[in-house]
Amino acid sequence: MHQVMPIDMEKDLLDANRKLAAENHDLLGRSGVRSFDLMGSIGSGKTLLIQRLCESMGKKGVRCGAVLGDVMGDDDYKRISALGIPAVNLNTGKECHLDAHLTEHALEGIDLGSLDVLFIENVGNLVCPADFPLGTDSRIVVISVTEGDDMVRKHPLIFKEADIIVINKSDLASIMEVDVNILVSDARTVKPSAEVVITNAKTGEGVQDLIRALGI
Amino acid sequence: MHQVMPIDMEKDLLDANRKLAAENHDLLGRSGVRSFDLMGSIGSGKTLLIQRLCESMGKKGVRCGAVLGDVMGDDDYKRISALGIPAVNLNTGKECHLDAHLTEHALEGIDLGSLDVLFIENVGNLVCPADFPLGTDSRIVVISVTEGDDMVRKHPLIFKEADIIVINKSDLASIMEVDVNILVSDARTVKPSAEVVITNAKTGEGVQDLIRALGI
Repeated sequence: MHQVMPIDMEKDLLDANRKLAAENHDLLGRSGVRSFDLMGSIGSGKTLLIQRLCESMGKKGVRCGAVLGDVMGDDDYKRISALGIPAVNLNTGKECHLDAHLTEHALEGIDLGSLDVLFIENVGNLVCPADFPLGTDSRIVVISVTEGDDMVRKHPLIFKEADIIVINKSDLASIMEVDVNILVSDARTVKPSAEVVITNAKTGEGVQDLIRALGI
Repeated sequence: MHQVMPIDMEKDLLDANRKLAAENHDLLGRSGVRSFDLMGSIGSGKTLLIQRLCESMGKKGVRCGAVLGDVMGDDDYKRISALGIPAVNLNTGKECHLDAHLTEHALEGIDLGSLDVLFIENVGNLVCPADFPLGTDSRIVVISVTEGDDMVRKHPLIFKEADIIVINKSDLASIMEVDVNILVSDARTVKPSAEVVITNAKTGEGVQDLIRALGI
């Protein structure tokens, strides 16, 4: 459920979220965990990217965990935990985004002391998560070339929130007749300070570039 | 902006939306216009489907128009109006879904007397539009096989709202390693009364089936 609300109430809710996000950030920092919030539309490839990142970093001894957010179900959680990656499933029930309060509860369900890096996969949605930072060190927006080359300029708000912008499924650009250069150029226009990384999570292409962008 | 709100306020807002939706429905009915709300994620192919439907029905003398909803920009509006299809651009600014009130204003901007059919393209989002009927005769959910075969069961609420479920970009199923049968079966489980139509808007495949499902 999501609707316009009186401006005062909206401000109160965003302020409350920011306060909780700061608490989450402190907890993660004290625990020595680097944390990343992955936002992006349905099917952009967030879960597979988390898998590839955890696999690759795991080989170098970096201990990764994940919180898998979704409206309903545990498909993503099952995929990730089946690989032996510490994971928590987080259902919003009806809400279209995670928030700092839900994240706080998820953090209670994972042994932060055993992790170096935590990925939080937000609900598949390119609008709503923008307003609700979770308290991670950085926010990542993942888009897929299958979404069309107009999609960055259609959703500038979420890209302005991003520290890293990932353009995934690069192998499908030609079959989709999508020009990746337009996506890259729009991303750089909307958020000049963000790092833009092109990946193909299926083959693992670009995953090392993304790890560098994460600063790990 | 979208956040949990007190239950009373949520109920009031949904009731107010339903009342306005009923007024829109009356107006469209009195004007002799059949109306359809197209919901679905970003890049599912809603705009191209509207184009194909209007082109095909136009050849048979059915006069179609469209309202193109988006958070920002007028990419979709330009695409449709360039084809000579009467169209209205509808930006929500920040909201993740259309509502009956926004629709009411859009209807003021289009000559209903000159139309037989009106398509309303909702904001690209598979969560939020579910709660906000606009007053159309039917609601359509469009998904693309590129979103993965788990996406119906991840978002049952919006499919429960659908009278027609369209599975688009069928040509990409094999390259995406997505089993269309799983999408069809999940759709039939979630909403047994909905018609399920498989399309490839790019080539026009399945568009005649969809026109039949619309009852036109």
